[in-house]
Amino acid sequence: MEKGLLFVISGPAGTGKGTVIKHLLETGEFFYSVSATTRAPRPGEEHGVNYYFISREDFEAGIAAGDMLEHAEYVGNLYGTPKSAVEDALAEGKNVILEIETKGALQIREKMPQAILILILAPDIQTLEARLSGRGTESADIVAKRMSEARREVTLLDKYDYVVINDDGKSEKAAQDIRTIAEAEKMRAFRNAHLKQKFI
Amino acid sequence: MEKGLLFVISGPAGTGKGTVIKHLLETGEFFYSVSATTRAPRPGEEHGVNYYFISREDFEAGIAAGDMLEHAEYVGNLYGTPKSAVEDALAEGKNVILEIETKGALQIREKMPQAILILILAPDIQTLEARLSGRGTESADIVAKRMSEARREVTLLDKYDYVVINDDGKSEKAAQDIRTIAEAEKMRAFRNAHLKQKFI
Repeated sequence: MEKGLLFVISGPAGTGKGTVIKHLLETGEFFYSVSATTRAPRPGEEHGVNYYFISREDFEAGIAAGDMLEHAEYVGNLYGTPKSAVEDALAEGKNVILEIETKGALQIREKMPQAILILILAPDIQTLEARLSGRGTESADIVAKRMSEARREVTLLDKYDYVVINDDGKSEKAAQDIRTIAEAEKMRAFRNAHLKQKFI
Repeated sequence: MEKGLLFVISGPAGTGKGTVIKHLLETGEFFYSVSATTRAPRPGEEHGVNYYFISREDFEAGIAAGDMLEHAEYVGNLYGTPKSAVEDALAEGKNVILEIETKGALQIREKMPQAILILILAPDIQTLEARLSGRGTESADIVAKRMSEARREVTLLDKYDYVVINDDGKSEKAAQDIRTIAEAEKMRAFRNAHLKQKFI
């Protein structure tokens, strides 16, 4: 069976990457790989759906065994991407999506060089700021912090394979762009070396 | 203005690459760059349409000046791709197509690393042989020679960026595949480094 493709999607807060990914999952062409965490489940969260909720001991054993594609610690809890779940889905021919911040994305690139790294951006920083302020749910301090984080993330653009612009209200277009990338990537020569066998 | 993309298309005889390219040129999204040659024009051939017909002296001066992206000699005549024509078209934002055999394609990769190399193949060697024999215009010797040439070309698959399969009677599908590749390539991060300026 043809192996699936691994997509790692990053992007500053306010670029609407969650909505773009939602479109991709709806059609069943993409599979979302669930992360693992040591934090306790919140009400309504389910094991294997929102996260794999595991103990710190098991998480650390996973890191030691090389079964975390990437991991990071936030506010005293570990979060990471279990390798086996990703590899199983790829082996089944599924296109896998991981939504990961830039640092984790670059960790994955090292462990799985064939991963396709996509950075989702707003058209420009003014649009991004308008979106973040417009939410009205965050203080000016938080908005300023996110803007500075966005600036840092954009400097990592060259480490990514593709940039997809999510224009306001056009998340379906951005999702379509990612489908186009998936189609083109399937034709990449290095993924089709098996064709040589058909010409002997 | 956004620069155009340079596509270098190769493929064994019998893969129908001429028909695929014809589809791409029809819609005006792609521009075919005319080659230069030292051979004399045949009846009906026009300078600047079929070839740039130039003297051996001018051709060799062009090579010495680095104005040939690639060149080769066949049956006592020189054939090559003038760099300036390609660069002018790219600067005008046109997507340029060059149809070049594998050796010339790899010469271009060295001179223009951003070129996109596409190898067009039949689904397998049986299909290719059936096509070549089916033409009925070539002797068994010529067919055998072309088949051996095809085998050699396929071993160079890894040097290409993409492989496009041209299934019998589906050249419009293969053309569409190349349009998909063009769309995806426009989103490649290294072609969008200018976006960083919009996030400062």
